[in-house]
Amino acid sequence: MASMMFTDCSSSMTSRLFHLNRRNGTSLLRQCVGQLRFQTTASGRGCIRSSSSSPISAISAETKSEGTATVIDGKAVAKKIRDEITIEVSRMKESIGVVPGLAVILVGDRKDSATYVRNKKKACDSVGIKSFEVCLAEDSSEEEVLRSVSGFNDDPSVHGILVQLPLPSHMDEQNILNAVSIEKDVDGFHPLNIGRLAMRGRKPLFVPCTPKGCIELLHRYNIGIKGKRAVVIGRSNIVGMPAALLLQREDATVTIIHSRTKNPEEITREADIIISAVGQANMVRGSWIKPGAVIIDVGINPVEDSSAARGYRLVGDICYEEASKVASAITPVPGGVGPMTIAMLLSNTFTSAKRIHNFQ
Amino acid sequence: MASMMFTDCSSSMTSRLFHLNRRNGTSLLRQCVGQLRFQTTASGRGCIRSSSSSPISAISAETKSEGTATVIDGKAVAKKIRDEITIEVSRMKESIGVVPGLAVILVGDRKDSATYVRNKKKACDSVGIKSFEVCLAEDSSEEEVLRSVSGFNDDPSVHGILVQLPLPSHMDEQNILNAVSIEKDVDGFHPLNIGRLAMRGRKPLFVPCTPKGCIELLHRYNIGIKGKRAVVIGRSNIVGMPAALLLQREDATVTIIHSRTKNPEEITREADIIISAVGQANMVRGSWIKPGAVIIDVGINPVEDSSAARGYRLVGDICYEEASKVASAITPVPGGVGPMTIAMLLSNTFTSAKRIHNFQ
Repeated sequence: MASMMFTDCSSSMTSRLFHLNRRNGTSLLRQCVGQLRFQTTASGRGCIRSSSSSPISAISAETKSEGTATVIDGKAVAKKIRDEITIEVSRMKESIGVVPGLAVILVGDRKDSATYVRNKKKACDSVGIKSFEVCLAEDSSEEEVLRSVSGFNDDPSVHGILVQLPLPSHMDEQNILNAVSIEKDVDGFHPLNIGRLAMRGRKPLFVPCTPKGCIELLHRYNIGIKGKRAVVIGRSNIVGMPAALLLQREDATVTIIHSRTKNPEEITREADIIISAVGQANMVRGSWIKPGAVIIDVGINPVEDSSAARGYRLVGDICYEEASKVASAITPVPGGVGPMTIAMLLSNTFTSAKRIHNFQ
Repeated sequence: MASMMFTDCSSSMTSRLFHLNRRNGTSLLRQCVGQLRFQTTASGRGCIRSSSSSPISAISAETKSEGTATVIDGKAVAKKIRDEITIEVSRMKESIGVVPGLAVILVGDRKDSATYVRNKKKACDSVGIKSFEVCLAEDSSEEEVLRSVSGFNDDPSVHGILVQLPLPSHMDEQNILNAVSIEKDVDGFHPLNIGRLAMRGRKPLFVPCTPKGCIELLHRYNIGIKGKRAVVIGRSNIVGMPAALLLQREDATVTIIHSRTKNPEEITREADIIISAVGQANMVRGSWIKPGAVIIDVGINPVEDSSAARGYRLVGDICYEEASKVASAITPVPGGVGPMTIAMLLSNTFTSAKRIHNFQ
């Protein structure tokens, strides 16, 4: 996203700036936070984050002492949703003897994909959804993957099918995703679902999990969408584009900002609601944000942090410290949208089982 | 579009205002054009249009004497496209003996629908596309319509199928449109086509004709889209929404304005490109427009005009007189987008025949 680049003030840079600041006074730090409108002179910390152990508790503490923004606690909301699903799944089992089932197809041996799949399995277990898994070797053929998809399409105990992305490069991702039965496309990535999402008077069978999670957070925090200016940063098929379509369905006036947008800062500053899904650490600064705006940060970006046990920590697309002083509400990273994605996957799987078995 | 209402200054009102103006001085006219930034005091005509015989020539004359905007001549561009299609259709017939075919299904006896269908037939004839037509009575059953759709789906001499809307109220429009084979959906309204239009890396088989015509006009006039701010007014499935998706595919930064938008004027004023498809005569005033913006006016609204032979004349969503003084380029109504819609329908039908017969 070339046109969105700015003087690097991301967290990976901040520890160096902080040291310079302590040695040479505030001038270098000012270069970093020069555009910031609502920077408090008392703390003068700009986008610098302390490497505290628990991000959520750290943020809450900061919010209390300096910021004004309500922290949108995705972890707590996701837990509540999982609890609701647990009760409903149990009711379904008791009433009609059906247990919802989610099948995941994992191809290759990417560690991150294996972790995601493991987490999904754990989440399914926690709410009583049965999980099915097929692991195929990196050098499997597309036909083998398609055979697995087809098997799950035909399996009545499977209500949702998820092909873990990315797939090995020798495979046609479109071809494989298109093969997933529209009735079991709990990821909501099928173009037929996206088309229905875009069209007024139509209803998709499933809404993609991450953008659905973003909107659910707004709902659960009673944040009005109708008539609001909304800016979505990023236009991916998985998050940005469907998030924009969802906001539009809820009567927001939506602008999508992307790599070719010439003045992202100016446009973002007009938004009452910002959803950022661009994958650039701390890209959106405090100066980009209209006072009182609501911020949903989908980005999860690793930045170097020698003080962290793993040598890195996770930050969002939004410079949290700056934004939390300007916004009225903001999701932390981690602990914001992340936990909602899996909760929405469970919700979609349960919805699918309900629809297939006509369970009210 | 409640929130877009403004002091009525539409053309249906202007003749009365003009009389008052002549009697009582300029005060009432000023109420009408009060927000206008670039009103020339010399003419003082605001949104008043002379009921000249040929709209295009009238506009051209006005452009020369007062305005600065280039008139985007949709009639001329559409003719050029039809000429190109005529040559290609003839080449196809000579090379592989195939004549592209377009089938139209008309249900009921709406006069406007009958006129549209007649015009489509004439346009097909003019480029050498064979046209098929089924006319069903108003009280036909949905099954009868579906049978006609199915027949054309199976007919190899038909490459495009178009169900004339609106359908009688006892029919399920979605159901009937969904029955049209995706390979022959030359209207591009199938959700699968819309989904592919929305998704990056996907390609729809057909793009809806009117928005396709809007973008084609920009292309033919060498108007850059990439990186531009674009505002689409109206979010219908047929024009506004797909127009926004198309602009986004061409790397514009797009905002859709609709009935729930609180400050349409302010947002529209940020746009380099405006596409309006809202169906409100002269709604967009000169004051809504950024100097140098490009305007594509999809609206075709009848307004009373006692001096016209039919008692009315057609105007767009944009107050042409005001806008043409501010914009750098503008489509007239009629003679702008209108002729492009049918040209794009012919283009889609030819594209379909090419694809089905693998003709390059």
